[in-house]
Amino acid sequence: MSCPVIETFGLYFIIYWPAVFVLRTQSLHGPIPVTTFGPKACMLQNPHADPASQRLTWNKPPKSVLVIKKIRDASLLQPFKELCIFLTEVKNMIVYVEKKVLEDPAISDENFGAITKKFCVFREDLDDISNRVDFIICLGGDGTLLYASSLFQESVPPVMAFHLGSLGFLTPFKFDTYQSQVTQIIEGNAAIVLRSRLKVRVLKETWEKKARVDEKGLILTNGDVESSRKAMQYQVLNEVVVDRGPSSYLSNVDLFLDGHLITTVQGDGVIVSTPTGSTAYAVAAGASMIHPNVPAIMITPICPHSLSFRPIVVPAGVELKIMLSRDARNTAWVSFDGRKRQEICHGDSITITTSCFPLPSICFRDPVNDWFESLAECLHWNVRKKQNYLSSEDEEF
Amino acid sequence: MSCPVIETFGLYFIIYWPAVFVLRTQSLHGPIPVTTFGPKACMLQNPHADPASQRLTWNKPPKSVLVIKKIRDASLLQPFKELCIFLTEVKNMIVYVEKKVLEDPAISDENFGAITKKFCVFREDLDDISNRVDFIICLGGDGTLLYASSLFQESVPPVMAFHLGSLGFLTPFKFDTYQSQVTQIIEGNAAIVLRSRLKVRVLKETWEKKARVDEKGLILTNGDVESSRKAMQYQVLNEVVVDRGPSSYLSNVDLFLDGHLITTVQGDGVIVSTPTGSTAYAVAAGASMIHPNVPAIMITPICPHSLSFRPIVVPAGVELKIMLSRDARNTAWVSFDGRKRQEICHGDSITITTSCFPLPSICFRDPVNDWFESLAECLHWNVRKKQNYLSSEDEEF
Amino acid sequence: MSCPVIETFGLYFIIYWPAVFVLRTQSLHGPIPVTTFGPKACMLQNPHADPASQRLTWNKPPKSVLVIKKIRDASLLQPFKELCIFLTEVKNMIVYVEKKVLEDPAISDENFGAITKKFCVFREDLDDISNRVDFIICLGGDGTLLYASSLFQESVPPVMAFHLGSLGFLTPFKFDTYQSQVTQIIEGNAAIVLRSRLKVRVLKETWEKKARVDEKGLILTNGDVESSRKAMQYQVLNEVVVDRGPSSYLSNVDLFLDGHLITTVQGDGVIVSTPTGSTAYAVAAGASMIHPNVPAIMITPICPHSLSFRPIVVPAGVELKIMLSRDARNTAWVSFDGRKRQEICHGDSITITTSCFPLPSICFRDPVNDWFESLAECLHWNVRKKQNYLSSEDEEF
Amino acid sequence: MSCPVIETFGLYFIIYWPAVFVLRTQSLHGPIPVTTFGPKACMLQNPHADPASQRLTWNKPPKSVLVIKKIRDASLLQPFKELCIFLTEVKNMIVYVEKKVLEDPAISDENFGAITKKFCVFREDLDDISNRVDFIICLGGDGTLLYASSLFQESVPPVMAFHLGSLGFLTPFKFDTYQSQVTQIIEGNAAIVLRSRLKVRVLKETWEKKARVDEKGLILTNGDVESSRKAMQYQVLNEVVVDRGPSSYLSNVDLFLDGHLITTVQGDGVIVSTPTGSTAYAVAAGASMIHPNVPAIMITPICPHSLSFRPIVVPAGVELKIMLSRDARNTAWVSFDGRKRQEICHGDSITITTSCFPLPSICFRDPVNDWFESLAECLHWNVRKKQNYLSSEDEEF
Repeated sequence: MSCPVIETFGLYFIIYWPAVFVLRTQSLHGPIPVTTFGPKACMLQNPHADPASQRLTWNKPPKSVLVIKKIRDASLLQPFKELCIFLTEVKNMIVYVEKKVLEDPAISDENFGAITKKFCVFREDLDDISNRVDFIICLGGDGTLLYASSLFQESVPPVMAFHLGSLGFLTPFKFDTYQSQVTQIIEGNAAIVLRSRLKVRVLKETWEKKARVDEKGLILTNGDVESSRKAMQYQVLNEVVVDRGPSSYLSNVDLFLDGHLITTVQGDGVIVSTPTGSTAYAVAAGASMIHPNVPAIMITPICPHSLSFRPIVVPAGVELKIMLSRDARNTAWVSFDGRKRQEICHGDSITITTSCFPLPSICFRDPVNDWFESLAECLHWNVRKKQNYLSSEDEEF
Repeated sequence: MSCPVIETFGLYFIIYWPAVFVLRTQSLHGPIPVTTFGPKACMLQNPHADPASQRLTWNKPPKSVLVIKKIRDASLLQPFKELCIFLTEVKNMIVYVEKKVLEDPAISDENFGAITKKFCVFREDLDDISNRVDFIICLGGDGTLLYASSLFQESVPPVMAFHLGSLGFLTPFKFDTYQSQVTQIIEGNAAIVLRSRLKVRVLKETWEKKARVDEKGLILTNGDVESSRKAMQYQVLNEVVVDRGPSSYLSNVDLFLDGHLITTVQGDGVIVSTPTGSTAYAVAAGASMIHPNVPAIMITPICPHSLSFRPIVVPAGVELKIMLSRDARNTAWVSFDGRKRQEICHGDSITITTSCFPLPSICFRDPVNDWFESLAECLHWNVRKKQNYLSSEDEEF
Repeated sequence: MSCPVIETFGLYFIIYWPAVFVLRTQSLHGPIPVTTFGPKACMLQNPHADPASQRLTWNKPPKSVLVIKKIRDASLLQPFKELCIFLTEVKNMIVYVEKKVLEDPAISDENFGAITKKFCVFREDLDDISNRVDFIICLGGDGTLLYASSLFQESVPPVMAFHLGSLGFLTPFKFDTYQSQVTQIIEGNAAIVLRSRLKVRVLKETWEKKARVDEKGLILTNGDVESSRKAMQYQVLNEVVVDRGPSSYLSNVDLFLDGHLITTVQGDGVIVSTPTGSTAYAVAAGASMIHPNVPAIMITPICPHSLSFRPIVVPAGVELKIMLSRDARNTAWVSFDGRKRQEICHGDSITITTSCFPLPSICFRDPVNDWFESLAECLHWNVRKKQNYLSSEDEEF
Repeated sequence: MSCPVIETFGLYFIIYWPAVFVLRTQSLHGPIPVTTFGPKACMLQNPHADPASQRLTWNKPPKSVLVIKKIRDASLLQPFKELCIFLTEVKNMIVYVEKKVLEDPAISDENFGAITKKFCVFREDLDDISNRVDFIICLGGDGTLLYASSLFQESVPPVMAFHLGSLGFLTPFKFDTYQSQVTQIIEGNAAIVLRSRLKVRVLKETWEKKARVDEKGLILTNGDVESSRKAMQYQVLNEVVVDRGPSSYLSNVDLFLDGHLITTVQGDGVIVSTPTGSTAYAVAAGASMIHPNVPAIMITPICPHSLSFRPIVVPAGVELKIMLSRDARNTAWVSFDGRKRQEICHGDSITITTSCFPLPSICFRDPVNDWFESLAECLHWNVRKKQNYLSSEDEEF
């Protein structure tokens, strides 16, 4: 899928708009994100702007909903069933569920068994649901959103995420009032935050020794080593991590920005994250925390050998590339939102840009309040008892 | 001075442009910056965008140049004279110089004395040069840029900054080839980086006991305490610092974002900085470093009592407000790029937004290369000898 | 007061003990601390050693107790009165109280007024109580202990500290069971932790122009400038802070260790702290936290300009010296446990060694448990909800 | 090998020495280290103590020297040969060399081949040289010392370490004056620093299903699962690391101190290091740096999920234990100075105490100067250009 909206807009752009703003928006702040999300959702046009102002609307009423449930968590079974029944029976929605969720033996009881027959059941990696889901409901932790993100490599339908138990960074809704909350979303006009994603391309060199054979299969020569290139692409919501994997050695990778070598990372590895990911692994590695509305990419070393290797924040519009250093004695490993872990060898490259397909995450209140709520709840950000550490002779102890 | 360019554009905006982009650009990423800098400079329109692509051009040829010299630094005298003579004699420019620079007894020799008669000499805070200078040349350290910034509370002419001695973050040019470099700037088409500034408004409550008098001056009543409000406004290039000043006590200030209390800062103080300022005081207090092209504001606590009070990065479009906490037992102190230090009492407020008047800083190469060059030179960012800290049984020590 | 116990021991030392242990104990780990605390307390000799094993005993039953109360805190009045009555009436102790505590108008009621007549009332800085108090009870926050420490420049009687309200680092006891707790201390055999203190000598050069006069007072010459030296000495429990005071400038001080210049501190300042102080101001400035039983001194820069200026921990036995750098353009300021703030000029020196007069702090449980309890309570050390930040494809989100 | 010196001293101890010092020295500051190093070296008794005062002496002239060379580094071959010839021919020492060092094809030339016949050649893990080597010379980086440490699980002979190329933390000597330097060591009276090591015991539960058979081998029962315990012990010079190994999951381990659970580590892992190790992996993970003469153990989390999980420093005398948390869903991995990496499963435990067998490292100058030299050279500690980040209105920019 391409970004047709942008191209269409591009026309007006060139004609009516001073080029400088084109540059600024398109390049430094990253690609202009799409503003349609799945088959039916788009951004509400609102002339009165404030940071908490992006809102969701529907071109047509939503009819299909993907429900994602953390599996192997018994406490989620009952909420999941309740929600599915509500969506199917009360809201007349078509519910999409992944096959393995229904394969859980604990899930089947007589009543629910009947309901599941109305579901659209799909299998990950086999069935393409990317253009069939109007919105997504997640039950159970930030991992469910990372999973939802991985299912939609292009336009992502709006995501409504419930935390059950502890609050996650990406799961602002409480389940106890789910009926009214879901109803409100279906009716449209909810605050959303567009969480930028990173588009990551991995280019691997592979060498094969191919013997040349004649028509009968007889070996003519021992063959030459032939290299071929294999390219993969991922959309990540939190981060790309390049680390030393199971090795005890330092990883040693070169980091390029818009084609220039900017530094070599020597340490446990490096994290390239979205603002959303800045509060995940990156913060554990020492990064500052970036609000998801800042158009930026964060680069955070993991246990760098150099004391002065502080994390940096670069404009969303740059292109980053990571390769093994020429003198690296070991390979490195890369993973994408904690998944698809794979080895990176000499000559392979990882290219990272901001994607034009953000994940539209429905807010409980608004992007600002939700974020500070998460900082306090999930990271205990500056939560403490008041106390003096400096006393003074003026004030009596 | 208002931002007429924006308002003019605003017309096209409303008519031809989907509201969503208006929102995004105007609000989250801060106000759209002006694109004219001083009386004659503006941004070159360039349809082929990349992060290093913003370029300076001239509406009319520049005729006047302000030369700022760090005073009391003998090593700068000779370069300063050379430069002034070159600008006056060779380039036929009108040179603006501050009075106290010329009052340095070491500066006057026969030859130079004659030249200075052609200068426009001004006095800080007394003479307004804000619309008379086409561009600025700084000699001698980041402080000269902070000073230049303070002279222009609205549109800032392009700034070309030479380091003499050690490289500064804001001073990319070497002096030895100044003639060709200056000539090139005068001819136009140089790379620039728009360094965002913060607009800071300080609102102070003052209480006065005013006796009411009759026409003849006779006291009628003892008078009531009347409060009046005094407002000041500053443009800062690096940061606003609120700290405990000379007190040994913790400062205790409330931080509001778009009207919501987001946290209370208990510690030595708090730094609100631009991306440019992220590599100044903020980095010393533990902040990550932000490229100047990221539209963001950084909030960094200074020695916070809470271990979890990590710095945060918020969109350039928000409005921050700082006030003494209700239960603060001491006042706080505020300064602006290290200047105009003043006390903040109960009821006073400091409001901070991104300014629409950035400082256009002329690049030596481009915004990306100049920045990474500065990180390495000024902060020794990740500069080190290669070395292993993990050994392994596979590899023989 | 000297350290007679050590000298006495010193005899055995030289005769019976291999010199190597003398070296090790005396020098690297700092001076051997005194083991008598006030007129009657000493350490219990216990042949079965473990880290929580240092215990208090009495040479003679304690008869006098100093009660320190945080003033201007109304919530402490009732506990204070109760405690004083209990000590006087039930335990027959002589209670020492500072004059200004009793001057609080809120304190005087009929009953209590009568009791106070039995108190020994003293005035800070005027009356010497250093050899008259058998133990100390503190009510109300870490500041009370810093104050107690400042009253005893040599041997410190055992301190029992109650927190009222929030837990402090130095105040492990809850007040609700104070009667049994105090009784147990009076009976002896409580766990104690010896909190090392720093002995700080400040040597100030002062210049005076003295006219020389003859016998009759007639001026003979205009006189020469004569310098004289003024020395002060302090015992600090938390830290010595050298900072830029009210100035906006960086402080610029040289740090010497055993006579060698080891580094120059450029930044907001430097903290030299005991292990006890590592969890106070130093931790806010980025230090690791050191258990009070480690014989060490911590050196922590405050917002250093250099990214690589990590805090360091040196053996308790070293001598540190701080002076203004030769090229410092401003003075610095020093304070001692947040008190006695004073300016440091060129030529002045601050010399810091581990004191042989530690503060014996009575434990609620033992040094290890009390410390980890404080870390959790006061600093929320690693207190958090469990949560995953890495997901994996193996585990279903 | 036991610690006979201590036991002998123990006698005097009990008789003449107040128990309190026994406790202090033995327990809080860790076990009293042995003071003999290999068959012939011991500490010089020196009554005039200062931190740089521990010195090496010989009971008898040293006759045997182990030379450790980093293998597969061609630049070391010539220095290695020169040194071995010098030791053998000039100094008449018996040179111990590991077999694989001599198996390097590049090493054999005619001259050197003849010399090698005089060497004592040994194989790691097969030949015990622990009581046969009088001192050790290392060529080539900190890894050589870690390797030397691993060869001596009990008393370690004095180590003299040459850096070739870049300075290592543990390799203070320059090779160009090796002849005079080695001669001086052989003559005795060199400054040494005792680098404490950690004694680590790993206890693994193993379960086996053992069929019970009768005398003829006939199976009687299917057998029960029987658990057996396997214990291993290591001496580490830098650190024990427990991490998530090749897994993407957080590790989740419990940390006990003297039998008490003090915290649970959730993150990439945890580092338990000596002061020597504080400047290795621990510093990369954010630890403060501890001088090797401080009797302490450092505990540093690796990318902890909790923002408040600051590193801590505990007395050398404690016993630490690490186990998988009960609710850990994955195993963890442990390594010792980067070696012997192995998996840790539920029920396994890692017990860590300070060893009584430190590594005596010969100083180039003294423990203080060598350490600060290493900080500057290896970590660029506070090495920077002087620069202002705060300007002021007083001082003209």
